[in-house]
Amino acid sequence: MKIYFSPASPFVRKCLVVAAEVGLADRIEKLPSNAHPVNRDSTIATSNPLGQVPTFFTDDGQAIHDSRVICEYLNSLAGADLFPADAKKRWLALTEQSLADGILDAALLARYEATVRPDALRWEDWSQSQMGKIADSLDYFEGAIGRRGDQVDIGTITLGCALGYLGFRFADYDWRSSRPALAAWFAKFNQRPSMQQTLPPA
Amino acid sequence: MKIYFSPASPFVRKCLVVAAEVGLADRIEKLPSNAHPVNRDSTIATSNPLGQVPTFFTDDGQAIHDSRVICEYLNSLAGADLFPADAKKRWLALTEQSLADGILDAALLARYEATVRPDALRWEDWSQSQMGKIADSLDYFEGAIGRRGDQVDIGTITLGCALGYLGFRFADYDWRSSRPALAAWFAKFNQRPSMQQTLPPA
Repeated sequence: MKIYFSPASPFVRKCLVVAAEVGLADRIEKLPSNAHPVNRDSTIATSNPLGQVPTFFTDDGQAIHDSRVICEYLNSLAGADLFPADAKKRWLALTEQSLADGILDAALLARYEATVRPDALRWEDWSQSQMGKIADSLDYFEGAIGRRGDQVDIGTITLGCALGYLGFRFADYDWRSSRPALAAWFAKFNQRPSMQQTLPPA
Repeated sequence: MKIYFSPASPFVRKCLVVAAEVGLADRIEKLPSNAHPVNRDSTIATSNPLGQVPTFFTDDGQAIHDSRVICEYLNSLAGADLFPADAKKRWLALTEQSLADGILDAALLARYEATVRPDALRWEDWSQSQMGKIADSLDYFEGAIGRRGDQVDIGTITLGCALGYLGFRFADYDWRSSRPALAAWFAKFNQRPSMQQTLPPA
């Protein structure tokens, strides 16, 4: 199996955390990439017209994306239970994956606004709206995470990757002080080998 | 069941097309909403901090989002096969859903750039990049759609909604003339009752 890889991409990380959790990390070759929000990587685009990482290849060459599909594929291949079969647990895990993906989508848009778009064309309302989505989503998880206990599933893994990305790209953003339960959960979750093996570059 | 609804949202439409295809459309109450990319709807945000449509409620009150999760829920509830169980078909359908969702994400970003962002802050490179993703994704489907035949699954439904959205919001964008196979496929698919019952406003 192969994956177009970027060490800074939180969506790539999510796939690699899942791969580590289900015992498949060693079987995935990392392909270099130059994914960029405006200048698409033409090599990736041959297999995924969106030109985005992660794009993944099964052993028989089928191209699969995006991270949600790749993660479900890896879970299925390993016969693991990161996508719960029980209905109520499944819809909760998938909805929390969607919410944590939404934190990442908002964080990426805020970052593109601040670092990719020319200075003179930046729009403060747009950036604030993205940060507002992030703050409210984190507030939800502050209230909800206690009910998840030590559950490891696609919802909590995506949340871990989202919080890791905030620490990586928004280091000055203090999400912890008003969210002690979430901060405590992440401090523990982040010690999992799957998280430590996939830390973004310093 | 209930869904926060906007008649112009292609992601809401996708859920309603799935509901119609699996025979559940009559059981879903449409709740009014004021979703907006910058000014979040505070009513929706109570149940989904991203403030986005579609946000959905099961009969026992569980909030579910986004469209991918809602569609899978409806399919599961009805015992339908829009999310194929066969592995190869499943990863193809889910990857094509991801690609068609990517067309919609790009189209929405292009539309926000052109209609929501103040004139003086618009960035042509950003808009062109979004339209480039759309064009290349449509080229993929032009080559791939012949292999799908009359298949109705979450991949082809999402593609139908994406093409419908281009017609609705990018009426001057001629995607058909260089993609005759895709144009012919859509002309037929768009006649399905599920598509006709969910047409965006004129």
